[in-house]
Amino acid sequence: MRRFGQHAVLKDDMIETYTALHAAVWPEVLEVIHACNLVNYSIYRSGRELFAYFEYVGSDYEADMRRMEQSEVMQRWWTHTKPCFLHHDRQEYYMDWNEIFHLA
Amino acid sequence: MRRFGQHAVLKDDMIETYTALHAAVWPEVLEVIHACNLVNYSIYRSGRELFAYFEYVGSDYEADMRRMEQSEVMQRWWTHTKPCFLHHDRQEYYMDWNEIFHLA
Repeated sequence: MRRFGQHAVLKDDMIETYTALHAAVWPEVLEVIHACNLVNYSIYRSGRELFAYFEYVGSDYEADMRRMEQSEVMQRWWTHTKPCFLHHDRQEYYMDWNEIFHLA
Repeated sequence: MRRFGQHAVLKDDMIETYTALHAAVWPEVLEVIHACNLVNYSIYRSGRELFAYFEYVGSDYEADMRRMEQSEVMQRWWTHTKPCFLHHDRQEYYMDWNEIFHLA
């Protein structure tokens, strides 16, 4: 199992939109996330800053992430979420941070 | 089970110290953390920013946190970690962020 911690920043005027989207994520998005072997997925927010924590339980993370990117459902979902991010011209909205400590 | 996501900021000149401390956390500190019912505890870092994720599996979080604060081991450990934080005059170094999404 691999763990990930990722940070992102929202546009100030899109905080409510992003929060509302995540209070009612489409069931088919949740299905794709699980199909791509991501579990225990949480997103935290303070102001316009976001931090996501999730666990990967598959055997090929890069291949599963490519599958997720190619998923029609996710591409449709991202048309709603991507405009919320401050760095909307960047390829990756959530950036990996380094794990400096872990206790099971 | 309750999940927590918390953010903190280090002093620029204490980033290496804090990282080194967490690469070799004292075994007795790990024991106290488990005794206080915290599990799956990760800390992520980018620059001087930290984000901690952990899960609480006990039945009285506030009481367990008070026990942790009163632990002699933790008080000794914190004499090393507390000077690393930017807001060293603040009572809490790690601040809770709000969970806006969770998928088991």
